[in-house]
Amino acid sequence: MNYPFVAVVGQETMKRALLLNIVNPDIGGVLIRGEKGTGKSLCVRGLTELLPDIDTVLGCRYNCEPTDMDRLCSDCAEKARKKSLEPERRPMRMVNLPLNVTEDRLVGSIDIEKVLSRGQKAVEMGLLAEAHRGILYIDEINLLDDNIVDVLLDAAAMGVVTVEREGISLNYPSRFIMVGSMNPEEGELRPQLLDRLALVADVKGLTDPEQRVSVMVLREEFSKDPDAFIEKYRSETLAMKRKVAKAREVLPSVKISQGILETIARVAVAFGVDGHRADIIIERTARTAAAFDGRTQVEGSDLVTACELALPHRMRRQPFEEGEFSRTQLHNLIERFQKET
Amino acid sequence: MNYPFVAVVGQETMKRALLLNIVNPDIGGVLIRGEKGTGKSLCVRGLTELLPDIDTVLGCRYNCEPTDMDRLCSDCAEKARKKSLEPERRPMRMVNLPLNVTEDRLVGSIDIEKVLSRGQKAVEMGLLAEAHRGILYIDEINLLDDNIVDVLLDAAAMGVVTVEREGISLNYPSRFIMVGSMNPEEGELRPQLLDRLALVADVKGLTDPEQRVSVMVLREEFSKDPDAFIEKYRSETLAMKRKVAKAREVLPSVKISQGILETIARVAVAFGVDGHRADIIIERTARTAAAFDGRTQVEGSDLVTACELALPHRMRRQPFEEGEFSRTQLHNLIERFQKET
Amino acid sequence: MNYPFVAVVGQETMKRALLLNIVNPDIGGVLIRGEKGTGKSLCVRGLTELLPDIDTVLGCRYNCEPTDMDRLCSDCAEKARKKSLEPERRPMRMVNLPLNVTEDRLVGSIDIEKVLSRGQKAVEMGLLAEAHRGILYIDEINLLDDNIVDVLLDAAAMGVVTVEREGISLNYPSRFIMVGSMNPEEGELRPQLLDRLALVADVKGLTDPEQRVSVMVLREEFSKDPDAFIEKYRSETLAMKRKVAKAREVLPSVKISQGILETIARVAVAFGVDGHRADIIIERTARTAAAFDGRTQVEGSDLVTACELALPHRMRRQPFEEGEFSRTQLHNLIERFQKET
Amino acid sequence: MNYPFVAVVGQETMKRALLLNIVNPDIGGVLIRGEKGTGKSLCVRGLTELLPDIDTVLGCRYNCEPTDMDRLCSDCAEKARKKSLEPERRPMRMVNLPLNVTEDRLVGSIDIEKVLSRGQKAVEMGLLAEAHRGILYIDEINLLDDNIVDVLLDAAAMGVVTVEREGISLNYPSRFIMVGSMNPEEGELRPQLLDRLALVADVKGLTDPEQRVSVMVLREEFSKDPDAFIEKYRSETLAMKRKVAKAREVLPSVKISQGILETIARVAVAFGVDGHRADIIIERTARTAAAFDGRTQVEGSDLVTACELALPHRMRRQPFEEGEFSRTQLHNLIERFQKET
Amino acid sequence: MNYPFVAVVGQETMKRALLLNIVNPDIGGVLIRGEKGTGKSLCVRGLTELLPDIDTVLGCRYNCEPTDMDRLCSDCAEKARKKSLEPERRPMRMVNLPLNVTEDRLVGSIDIEKVLSRGQKAVEMGLLAEAHRGILYIDEINLLDDNIVDVLLDAAAMGVVTVEREGISLNYPSRFIMVGSMNPEEGELRPQLLDRLALVADVKGLTDPEQRVSVMVLREEFSKDPDAFIEKYRSETLAMKRKVAKAREVLPSVKISQGILETIARVAVAFGVDGHRADIIIERTARTAAAFDGRTQVEGSDLVTACELALPHRMRRQPFEEGEFSRTQLHNLIERFQKET
Amino acid sequence: MNYPFVAVVGQETMKRALLLNIVNPDIGGVLIRGEKGTGKSLCVRGLTELLPDIDTVLGCRYNCEPTDMDRLCSDCAEKARKKSLEPERRPMRMVNLPLNVTEDRLVGSIDIEKVLSRGQKAVEMGLLAEAHRGILYIDEINLLDDNIVDVLLDAAAMGVVTVEREGISLNYPSRFIMVGSMNPEEGELRPQLLDRLALVADVKGLTDPEQRVSVMVLREEFSKDPDAFIEKYRSETLAMKRKVAKAREVLPSVKISQGILETIARVAVAFGVDGHRADIIIERTARTAAAFDGRTQVEGSDLVTACELALPHRMRRQPFEEGEFSRTQLHNLIERFQKET
Repeated sequence: MNYPFVAVVGQETMKRALLLNIVNPDIGGVLIRGEKGTGKSLCVRGLTELLPDIDTVLGCRYNCEPTDMDRLCSDCAEKARKKSLEPERRPMRMVNLPLNVTEDRLVGSIDIEKVLSRGQKAVEMGLLAEAHRGILYIDEINLLDDNIVDVLLDAAAMGVVTVEREGISLNYPSRFIMVGSMNPEEGELRPQLLDRLALVADVKGLTDPEQRVSVMVLREEFSKDPDAFIEKYRSETLAMKRKVAKAREVLPSVKISQGILETIARVAVAFGVDGHRADIIIERTARTAAAFDGRTQVEGSDLVTACELALPHRMRRQPFEEGEFSRTQLHNLIERFQKET
Repeated sequence: MNYPFVAVVGQETMKRALLLNIVNPDIGGVLIRGEKGTGKSLCVRGLTELLPDIDTVLGCRYNCEPTDMDRLCSDCAEKARKKSLEPERRPMRMVNLPLNVTEDRLVGSIDIEKVLSRGQKAVEMGLLAEAHRGILYIDEINLLDDNIVDVLLDAAAMGVVTVEREGISLNYPSRFIMVGSMNPEEGELRPQLLDRLALVADVKGLTDPEQRVSVMVLREEFSKDPDAFIEKYRSETLAMKRKVAKAREVLPSVKISQGILETIARVAVAFGVDGHRADIIIERTARTAAAFDGRTQVEGSDLVTACELALPHRMRRQPFEEGEFSRTQLHNLIERFQKET
Repeated sequence: MNYPFVAVVGQETMKRALLLNIVNPDIGGVLIRGEKGTGKSLCVRGLTELLPDIDTVLGCRYNCEPTDMDRLCSDCAEKARKKSLEPERRPMRMVNLPLNVTEDRLVGSIDIEKVLSRGQKAVEMGLLAEAHRGILYIDEINLLDDNIVDVLLDAAAMGVVTVEREGISLNYPSRFIMVGSMNPEEGELRPQLLDRLALVADVKGLTDPEQRVSVMVLREEFSKDPDAFIEKYRSETLAMKRKVAKAREVLPSVKISQGILETIARVAVAFGVDGHRADIIIERTARTAAAFDGRTQVEGSDLVTACELALPHRMRRQPFEEGEFSRTQLHNLIERFQKET
Repeated sequence: MNYPFVAVVGQETMKRALLLNIVNPDIGGVLIRGEKGTGKSLCVRGLTELLPDIDTVLGCRYNCEPTDMDRLCSDCAEKARKKSLEPERRPMRMVNLPLNVTEDRLVGSIDIEKVLSRGQKAVEMGLLAEAHRGILYIDEINLLDDNIVDVLLDAAAMGVVTVEREGISLNYPSRFIMVGSMNPEEGELRPQLLDRLALVADVKGLTDPEQRVSVMVLREEFSKDPDAFIEKYRSETLAMKRKVAKAREVLPSVKISQGILETIARVAVAFGVDGHRADIIIERTARTAAAFDGRTQVEGSDLVTACELALPHRMRRQPFEEGEFSRTQLHNLIERFQKET
Repeated sequence: MNYPFVAVVGQETMKRALLLNIVNPDIGGVLIRGEKGTGKSLCVRGLTELLPDIDTVLGCRYNCEPTDMDRLCSDCAEKARKKSLEPERRPMRMVNLPLNVTEDRLVGSIDIEKVLSRGQKAVEMGLLAEAHRGILYIDEINLLDDNIVDVLLDAAAMGVVTVEREGISLNYPSRFIMVGSMNPEEGELRPQLLDRLALVADVKGLTDPEQRVSVMVLREEFSKDPDAFIEKYRSETLAMKRKVAKAREVLPSVKISQGILETIARVAVAFGVDGHRADIIIERTARTAAAFDGRTQVEGSDLVTACELALPHRMRRQPFEEGEFSRTQLHNLIERFQKET
Repeated sequence: MNYPFVAVVGQETMKRALLLNIVNPDIGGVLIRGEKGTGKSLCVRGLTELLPDIDTVLGCRYNCEPTDMDRLCSDCAEKARKKSLEPERRPMRMVNLPLNVTEDRLVGSIDIEKVLSRGQKAVEMGLLAEAHRGILYIDEINLLDDNIVDVLLDAAAMGVVTVEREGISLNYPSRFIMVGSMNPEEGELRPQLLDRLALVADVKGLTDPEQRVSVMVLREEFSKDPDAFIEKYRSETLAMKRKVAKAREVLPSVKISQGILETIARVAVAFGVDGHRADIIIERTARTAAAFDGRTQVEGSDLVTACELALPHRMRRQPFEEGEFSRTQLHNLIERFQKET
């Protein structure tokens, strides 16, 4: 039983980053970064109750998308050749990646015995298969073994995973929202993995005594009787879940003006980011932020939200005076650029 | 045969930390830290005779709790679907984790032969299964292999352990009181593991010659005739066991005022702790300390006790002049904060 | 579905290096080197739609060349002894090398079971077999394991791969265009591997805001409806594919004058390259550049193109003032040398 | 055939430390530390002929003690449930731990084949089982592999060893006198292992030419005709063996005064030892020294002997002027403390 | 198809070192050392067409020498006991050692299955067996794994290799000409292996533009039509092959004067070489150089040739002014020494 | 075929050290230390032709000594229980330890298959078994793997080796003359192993041109026709072999005076050696040197010989002025000590 997401005290940036990702899985994941004891993993796990339903092929264990003929598992591909695929709505999944995961558990394995005795492919699904079209959550992501990180990078780059054993091989689709959390004091994240994560939310402990008391009271209340606590927040949880579902419907209709696009390009250059990935992520995140607000037109405030999450790990310089940048500074800069274009 | 806990000379902080944990397993474990030869492991092992009884499902080897339908092993879960679970009272267990433990021994393993020949899941219980709802004691905890620490962290985070072998997998619950002991001269504890241990008790050798003589006399007496020695302390041991059991009964009724909660928040900020874990641990430990005294209202002295054990490894600064902090200093600070709120 | 090569904004050097290699596989591969997010792997993958057809032996899974009697797989060699080999036109293949590839997957493996039960050689083709006469693409090439690099170096040196297991061994041809991409900030490439790659193209992010907006717009357009996007660029794609095919026909007729050859030798000495490999690569690349332009005579501009790609990782000094060398500088130097010879 | 212990020239400290340990196995082992070629291992091996007889269960291969119902092997435990155990006198064993010992050889292993075919537990005894209630001798103890040291530490801490293989597990008692020898120039001993060894005897080569000639003459004589040499020293050997046996009988009756105990506490504090282990070891060693002299009352000279062996590796400061401490200094200090108490 | 040895432009020292070794395999191998791209491995591989025929035992797969009764494989040894061995002329072999060779592939392995089922020794020949009495070529010799180097050193020292598996063992002769090539910038060669290689030839890229143009022209000509190119150089190749064969016939008759021998000794002392190996290698190389010229008397110029190849990796000082030594300096020194003796 | 020992030019110290060891195996081995190319291993291998015959048990493959009832292999031990053992004279063996030896090859292995199918112990003899009562020669002894060195140290210390596999174990005697050779430039020898080797002979290349010419001439003569060369030195070889055999007979009768013994003790102290091993080795070597000269009384010159070989690796200071010590200095010192005693 998870602590309700809507009962998390404060930490707006982290919550926004997580919600935007489940509205639009194309954003490309998020890293929650901050000191220990700030409820990072509690908040991620609470997301479970907000996950939207997705359309899948009826009976497909890989959660294949019935209309995406390009990325079907081999069973669905075979079916699709004969007739159109029957759909089935299921909730998006959240899969947990344990720190001591093996490559076999991650990728899946082939049961040779079964293959030999029954003459059919018998694959044990790996976590990457379970996470397809859902969330893959990795707590302490900076402590993963290098070979596991390699597998994750390959999977994230290709969207497809290959399982092999003694000459038998099998592909399955694996496109997931990667969500990581870490305490930077315990070591840095490998740069390739950091770059794969579209957004970063930095969290800190609350300093307001009242908020801290709230945290204690709510946590103890949940600890004593989780069922009652969850019940108490049920309507708030359902409202948020509907807001997410609504945003997913609006998203395809969101428009973005040429002026906003140029502003994004200028911001990216001003922050000295590498290549063009930051531009694309900001553009997508801003559109998603608009959709989350129920709007179909991207505004400057959406850009602020997007830059706040997309730039911290990509900028090489910052156009402001020293120190960490604030939403206000971003707001002013974006306004200035918008006027100039 | 263990040296009786009640015959340990001095070392009140260590004894208090251990007792509070068996009264309230939700506190989250304790680390005994100090120079060698101070009787750390002797004291922990002596705890065995004080362990309370717990309610388990009749015949369940995982010690499942009959009323906690959310965390049943697969056998109990199946039974529960048909009828309500029959209870059985058993003493809480203490499980020893040897330094050279393998991952298989810790997590358990699946006997493939038996599975193949009899068609049933045959799991060798690991130490994490044996420790469920009991104590997992790790002497020289700072010398554990990194991969073993990873397994412990995953188990402690999830409360569930997964055993896998060649495509067969099985979950079982594993929530334990982690008790570690170590000599800091032999190496530091990994920060993630240190953070998992709610309390820390620092111990030193006694300097009073009379106490030292007592230690020699009692230890020699125990060594010569353990049975007689244990007999001599039986009534004192039973009294302490009853006190623990009583405290467990009182605990749910303990109340904590808003003022005390605010004081906790201020103490946490004053000591510069990360996040909110310290607040929650202090709150729980204080409530348990009240229950151990038979009270249902948390007082300032309970806060002192809780802070003394919860802060040493979490504080980043201290609000006092240089040097280690004392109970008296804590007392004064807490009194001041209480007046201010 | 790949992003169309012809829709890649800017990055002319990288595109030219890739195209020249598929026109003339004897050039010897290319390394795309640059900051992240510059579309390196997107551009390489887009090459797939431009790959020319090649003549192979009908039914041969190793893509053997029917007229190259010296480099046939064992099956084709056996057939060839009896009668001439029937040809079959197939598109050149692009094979992806994942970062966590095993030596078995790379080289192939022998299925002992099948051998024992059926008395025939049963080889699982490795990636090196699949890449024969095609492209082997290695993203993050600088992060490959050393033992995998050893295998690649042996294969590239010999053009033949040997699979062995328990006393059974089998050779197959493996001559491929090695294409690598990397971000130099994440570590250097092993010098032996760098030396094997004939050309290097250094890429940077675009700084022109308009180009950046184009990148965002096109990428988003592709992301929303890949099929429509690809359709939009189909004619441009086909034109480029025909240009490549045409260049392959012209290539054998391209002539190179004695003066140009001497200019190459002087350039190589002026840049202090090791040995003679640079000379040979420049000569081949220049001839291919002429063929790509439809000419049968190598000109100074072809030399500029060839030097720009062949020298960056081979020069030990440069004859210009400090800083990176430009096409203009190369042009002037080559003109001067041409006059002198 | 071993060189006779009683024919060892000089080295009184080493000989005393070894003899006291076989009189009283509870002392807790000894480390012989010194330059090479000083006859350390020769002296330890010579101890074999002096080892006393011990009472064991008739036929038990683990040397179980018939009256110690708490520490029986599983076979004896089963027998004991039906009837009282028949005793059998056997000589104490000395077991040699080779440097390249494997964990299997040390701990023992289970013969799975036998188990499967005959349905019974078939354990190959490890060296730790053979050493139960005897001596475990480890030459070059400072060169042991870390994983072997871990096993020794676990065994020494628990007194019990667990053998496991594929789901079958078995416990046996293992309490041994650990005797190590080492040359400190070849590397230090791990601190945890050093701390486990109750006493340390430092040895040096003899500098008196006459003694050196004796060493040569005796060693050559032994080398030429071991049988004759051993015969020559037989009566002296037997006398020493009887002295050891006598001391074992006297030991339980030895008394120690309150004043002596206080003196021990003061000495321990004066030398800045960690915790209380030193006090307890000094107390036990002093009582054993008295027994070895046939006395039932501990005297100051026994304290000197005990301190000389127990303090070198435990003291953190010394109350004397610089340099190593001598028996005389110890004597004076102890006398002073005795007067003061 | 190999590039013809006689068409290699320049690089006289390297070519001489290789030719002398195939004339006289007793010289003891050669290391080609130099910058990349200088055609080192191309030149070694070209040697294949020049290899002389050798006398072997008819049908022996180990290439046993019929008159060397001391070094026969076990099959030949058995045959030889019954009757004299029938000879068979075969070309000397060149065997390639890949960088990622395994110990099994190098040494050979025993096919246990075959042994068990058919009751005969079934050995898979290793590369060391194939190289017996031929050339073992190791490109990038400085990058070999240490364990492979150990095997090579043992084989080179003993001339015999032992294959073992599960209690079956088998010896076969293995005396080969070790030829290595390396780029010293990529790491040094292990000193023991360097010492095993009798001669060293240092190569550099050509600096003469005309020669560089020749290299390009010839290499491109070969690349376009290898068959035609090889045909063009056929007569030159055959002439060189006959010269090698002739030199092998002359070699046993070559005489060396006492004066020349003393000169060798003085040179060795002057260059401060270790031990006597350099003397012996110079003597053998000089005799071979004379034979290669068709002479039966060693002259000063032969000494120059021998010293130039044998001293670079053995000298500890040099009797000339600073800098690398030249053939002229060697010539003068040797002339001076010859006059003095 | 080995180069004859008696044809080795110069290097008297090395030859003397080797000969004394085969006269008296109790001396305890020798290390030949020196620059490469000085014929170290050639000289050791030449020893083969001089090895004396030893008495063994008829048919025993472990070379058991029929009169040493204490150290018989298990087969001989069983036979001996029934009747006295029949003797058989065989030549002492020399066994070569290859650098890449495995632990299995060194120690031997048990053929489980054979055991299971025939019910008998089937041991593949290891090199340590073959070397029993012979020479174990280790070229490049300083490059041995650490785990192999551990096995050698254990074997040398115990004189017995234990082979174990899956619960079956077997002991066999292994007492050998360890002969090592090494080039100190390639790394030091582990101190424990160095200490095990009783004598050290340091060798250098000859500097006399005439001797160097002799080396070349003899080596070439041997290389051209080994049979003829060996024949030429046959009588000299036989004479040396007889001298060795004679010395072995005389050895037991050699006497050593009290004065000489005291001189040894004084020398050992003067050179600051550790412990008493040096004294004992000098005493034994001196007695053997006398026997080699056919004398039965040890003289000062024997001491000089013994000290020259036993002290280089054991002394911590030297009583002479700086620099290496010479035979003459030793002679004078010993004479002075002899006068003083």
